[in-house]
Formats: sequence, structure tokens, C-alpha cells
Amino acid sequence: MKILIKDATLISMEETRTRKEEGYDVLVDNEKIVKIGQNLDEKADKVIDAKSRVLLPGLINTHAHVPMSIFREIVDGLPLQEWLEEKIWPIESKLTGDDIYKASLLSFEEMIASGTTTINDHYFMSENIIKAAIEKGVRIELTRTLMDSDGQGDKRLEELQDLLEKYQGKNENISFSIGIHGLYTSSPDYVKKATDLARKYNLNIHMHFCENKEEVETIKKVYGVSYPAQVLERYFEGLNVILAHCVMLTKQDMEVIKRMKINVSHCPVSNLRLGCGIAPIEELRNMGVNITLGTDGQGSGSNLDMFETMKFATLLQKGYFNNPRSMPAYEVLKMATINGAKALRKEKEIGSICVGKKADMILVDLDTCLTRPINDIFADLVYNAKAANVVMTMVGGRII
Amino acid sequence: MKILIKDATLISMEETRTRKEEGYDVLVDNEKIVKIGQNLDEKADKVIDAKSRVLLPGLINTHAHVPMSIFREIVDGLPLQEWLEEKIWPIESKLTGDDIYKASLLSFEEMIASGTTTINDHYFMSENIIKAAIEKGVRIELTRTLMDSDGQGDKRLEELQDLLEKYQGKNENISFSIGIHGLYTSSPDYVKKATDLARKYNLNIHMHFCENKEEVETIKKVYGVSYPAQVLERYFEGLNVILAHCVMLTKQDMEVIKRMKINVSHCPVSNLRLGCGIAPIEELRNMGVNITLGTDGQGSGSNLDMFETMKFATLLQKGYFNNPRSMPAYEVLKMATINGAKALRKEKEIGSICVGKKADMILVDLDTCLTRPINDIFADLVYNAKAANVVMTMVGGRII
Repeated sequence: MKILIKDATLISMEETRTRKEEGYDVLVDNEKIVKIGQNLDEKADKVIDAKSRVLLPGLINTHAHVPMSIFREIVDGLPLQEWLEEKIWPIESKLTGDDIYKASLLSFEEMIASGTTTINDHYFMSENIIKAAIEKGVRIELTRTLMDSDGQGDKRLEELQDLLEKYQGKNENISFSIGIHGLYTSSPDYVKKATDLARKYNLNIHMHFCENKEEVETIKKVYGVSYPAQVLERYFEGLNVILAHCVMLTKQDMEVIKRMKINVSHCPVSNLRLGCGIAPIEELRNMGVNITLGTDGQGSGSNLDMFETMKFATLLQKGYFNNPRSMPAYEVLKMATINGAKALRKEKEIGSICVGKKADMILVDLDTCLTRPINDIFADLVYNAKAANVVMTMVGGRII
Repeated sequence: MKILIKDATLISMEETRTRKEEGYDVLVDNEKIVKIGQNLDEKADKVIDAKSRVLLPGLINTHAHVPMSIFREIVDGLPLQEWLEEKIWPIESKLTGDDIYKASLLSFEEMIASGTTTINDHYFMSENIIKAAIEKGVRIELTRTLMDSDGQGDKRLEELQDLLEKYQGKNENISFSIGIHGLYTSSPDYVKKATDLARKYNLNIHMHFCENKEEVETIKKVYGVSYPAQVLERYFEGLNVILAHCVMLTKQDMEVIKRMKINVSHCPVSNLRLGCGIAPIEELRNMGVNITLGTDGQGSGSNLDMFETMKFATLLQKGYFNNPRSMPAYEVLKMATINGAKALRKEKEIGSICVGKKADMILVDLDTCLTRPINDIFADLVYNAKAANVVMTMVGGRII
């Protein structure tokens, strides 16, 4: 099937192109982008008039717990450990496969409504998430969360291996990571096993890291290190790693993250909600670290709206570090698109609008009273666009 | 005209009522609320089915510069003084009355779309704002901004007096304040004149205060005080004062604000954008200070969406001060409604849904994929509702 998008304001996020191009057409053939240009004279099964709308790559959410939609606003006002141990984990232990499936459907609807096309998940009973993802047509990287602090570590590893044997490479939209919950919930031996598995299957690591002070103290004690990133050097060398949060970093942690080319998933809304603090993102970015954005699960992040996350990300760095010049809007758009693709090692397939890439794209309508006039289109997208402005979401050439 | 709103989830923000009441009807007769109850058997000219929708008092924005819609995203990345002196003021000096009128129409549309019914404005060429406000049917308190740092202070005072003579008391929806730009742009003599005028006409004072470090230093130097609130004690005793920003407060400033029963308009989005910092709102709230919320003008605040402001307000206090228990959602809703009414000395007329008060109300639809399930309705309103969820805005009994 061929789809022709006509006359869009194209923000391709492709380095080799102009940042903003007015009146551009994009031709999609099956799952791929095959032509970009002005006044394309092409036959198509479907033509979309995108006049005065912005065509952007689909947003990429690099840290979420998809089935947590049902936890939205379930507990307001608890710190991280209390929230996890007293509220979240007891309920999670009772969830059925059908709960997971239905909660995932709701999250995928939310993701589609707010312009996110790819999500990096960290949960369990993952077959139910896969079923919902295929039904809704979204792109997802997922895992079976690994931890062994409760003595059930090996069972989880087996479940993940089963998942890989059964699903890996079976569907274009579904890929897998080795999702370690965190260093504070996994023993050194267990982390060794998990990282070995990542090497065996050539998979990305997706892990919570330095979300708050207590976590840092636990890691230092359990692993006998003077700062948490020393554990990364011990077990994760040579792997592609995505670390969610990174709020409580020392200079030394940051240096290791830079040297090991580790990707950071910044989750500003969740970090504020749980009273964790504000991550030193602008500093990491200036060091050359690949910064991406995540919403976290709705239990702490409230929703999967990446537009909101973009706004929080830029404003916190400006306000907290008293530097209004930090984190320009275009850089924030990169974090939510191409940087996310790089973190997932999918930058040759998604993350920008480019001939040969998969057609993961969204149309945004900025012609509303809350977004007009458009004095700076990148800033307008970051500061004023919201889920409600997204009028079309396409994944792999399919309008979902 | 009688309007009957049927079967709403009522969040009245009225102290004497239950916080959330399911299946309630509200009868409006002309501009006022005349009856609240279940299964009201009343004849009305118009019946609104509000089943599964939330009926809230209209939101009250206590600090804005209405005509600044045209400045939206005009400069990303400048600190306050540079932003004002190099970008905003030069453009403002060229604005015509028609510019102000049209820009105000856009802002009022934005305000209505996002559920705000009353706005506290600080600008100039105010007749054009009044014209737009009457046309759109919103409630506004406004001024003619006063400052004398450029030698034009007396002219501004005359303009404000003319405005008062011409418009005060002429329209239910229009009221006036004495809007002093700031202590750093007004001399002591001028502040004396302005506060005398406030006493003469019994008007509220609306002023920027301690927005950033430079401002505080200037005030200390010009007024010969050791902290800015000493100036408040010198000139503002006995007046009802609304101070916008209050970011850079010392303990002593806070004590004066408390003692003088001064109202604070917290503008978190603007404060972050201009790199000013994060105001100590939870501390002021715990001292008993009346905290209200403002968006500031769109030049720094981006938009007039008070739902967004509520979310930033609560998350910043939790995250920055590492206390997830601070600023519960219901308290934030108070800041955006009844506290705003108190600050404007209009709490007998607006700010809650109560028999005898003016019918300033909004209906919010939380039955969307980004807001379901509703585990905690107050948190869902603060963390997930957005302009797009507002389905009706009513001011003084008129659906606008």
C-alpha cells in the first residue's frame, strides 16, 4: 500500500536535511519511506493533506512500564522505596495475564494518542504485552524484568530465555532487551549472568540506575565500590546500555557513562513525583552523552505523554541550574526522536524521516489557540504541543 | 435564563461541602448559582447532561499579561533582564491598540479553552483588553502597569486614573488593581504615590516581586534595605497585595509576607523558563500564606494553561525539595480556584461552587485514554487533565 503525505511542514530530525522544510511531500510504500520532495507526482492508495501541519518522526519513549496504566494516581505522595514496597509490589504480585493485557491496551492507546511510536518497556508476563502491542500496531522493545533480591532470580532468567526463544525475530515491531531491575535488587553473580545473556543474544541492557540516594548507598555497600558506575565497568563493558533516571550521579559516574558510551533515559516527571530530584542532564549532554527521554510507568510518571516530558526536561535544566540558555528546543526534539533510536541501536531504521527508513511518523496540528502564533516552531512543539495536537500516528507505514 | 447541569461529579472547592460528590445537579439562574442537590426537579431553559464529567469552579489565573500571546516562543533561551530589555520592551513600545485588542482575543480564547474564568492582568493600553474581554465574556482584573524608571511614571498614573474614572463599576466582569511593575523599576516616591492611589480607590496591589537575584540586589541598593520585604512594610501596610513570583525570598521576607497577609502568585513555568529558580512555595504554604497560581505572560510562560501550571507547581515542590509528601493534589486545586478568589478579595463571589455565588464553572471530561482509570480524581485533575479535557467553560452563567 502506498500513502502520500502532501504539503507538510517537515521536521525530519535528519542531520543531512534542513531543520524545517515547508511544503514537503513524503511517499510511503508499505512499511518504508521511499521518497521525500516537493510537489511529488506519485500515485498512491491514500493521500493525506498535511497542509499547515507538522510532520515529525514518531516519538521514542525509552523508559516505561507499559502495564502500569492501571496504577495511574493510585498513590500520591510517597517516596520511592515506600511506594514500591508498600504499594506497587504487593498489587503487582496479584496481577493476572489478562490484567497485563488490558492495561497494556490502554497504555498503547495513550501512546498512540500522544504521538509515540516506539516504547522501551520493563515489566513481566511479557507475552500479554506482546499480544496487546501486535493488536495496537505499536513498536516496542521489551524484556522480562530481572532481579534476584527475593530469591526468584533464576526463574526470571528462564522466563526471559523462553520469551527470546519463542518471539525473537518473529515480528518487525517487537524486539528484546535484557532488563535488569537495578543493581540494588540484583546480586553481583546475578548481574554477571544477565550480562552474559546480553552478550550471547547481542541485546541491549535496560536498567534503573541511581534514581535516589538510598539506591546509591545500597549499591556501594553490596558491591563494595566507592561510586555506582564502578559496577558498570566491572560487568557491562562492550554492551549497549540504557540507564533510566541517573539522578544521583557523581562526576566520576558521569565520566564512566561518557567513556562507556552509555545511553541515559531521563524521566523528569517521575523523578519529581517521587521526590528523587533533578538529573544533571545538561552537564551529561555537554559531555557528549546520548540523552533520551522516558515517561516511566504511569504509577509515578502519571501518563505516557512525551510532549509533556519534553517540556519538563528543558524547563528543569533551565530553572534548576539557573541557565535559560541550556537545552534548546531542537535538542529536546532530538532526545525524543533520533537519540532514542540510537540508544536502542535502531537509528538505521527509525528516529528520523529519511528515505529507506521505516515510516514511523506523526502529524501535529499547531493551528490552535494554545499554540498560535508560531514564532519558533521547535519551541512551540516542545512548550505548547500536547497529545491533543497529534492528529495522526503512523508505525511502519500503518496509520494506527 | 435558567441552566440546569445534571448528574455531575461535583468538586465544589467549598469548605463546608464534601470534597467529591457524585451525581449532583446545579441550577443556574442568570449569573448566579441558585440550587445544588441530587435529582433536582427544576424547569430550565437549557439542561446539560454532565454524567461522568467533573464540575469544577472556573480556574483563576492570578498573574498574566494578556496581550503577550503574540510573544509566544519569540525568544527561547534568554535570562530575565536581557529578555525584557533586548527583546520584549523594544517590541512592546511599537504595539498599537489594535495589536493589543487582537492579541487579547487570542489569549481569552486560550483561557476559555483551558478552563480559566478569571484572570489577573498586568499590561497597558488596557481599554483594548477590556474591549476584548467584554467580547469574549471572561472575568478580568486589570490595571495600567506603573513604573517610572524611564521618567514616564506620572503619565502612567494619569492613564490609570482615567481608566478607573471611565470603567470602574461599569461591568460585573471587569475590576481594577494598582499594578506596580516592580520595586526595581519604581522609585520610592513613585511607590508612595501608587500605594496612596490604592488606598483612595480601595484596590488590590498587583506587583512582580523577587523574581531573580539581580532584582533583589537592585531593590536593596535603591531602597537601602537589607531584604526586599522591608519595602513592603514601609509602603504597603493595610493594603491587599498580590506578589507574583517570590522566587528569591529570605526567611525574613517570608515572615513579613506572612504577617502582612500578602498573597503569592506562584508562576512555576515562567520562573523555570527564564532561569530564575524555584520558589519556596511549600514553606510559605506551611506558614499559612495564601498561595495562588499564575501562568505569567506567554512570552515566558508559553501559554495560559492553568492545568499545566498546577502540575508544575506540585511536582517542583516534591522534586526540588525532595519531599514527595508535599503539596497534595487537593491543595493545588485550591490554589487554582478559591485561593485565587481570596487573593482578589472576590471569595464571596467566585472561587467555589456555592449557592449565591456567581456561576463561574467548568466541565472536565476525564473519560479519555490519558486520564483513565480514575484512581484519585484530585490527582488525575492535577497530573493528567489538560486544556483538551475541558468541555465547557461558564462565566457568570454564560457558556462561553
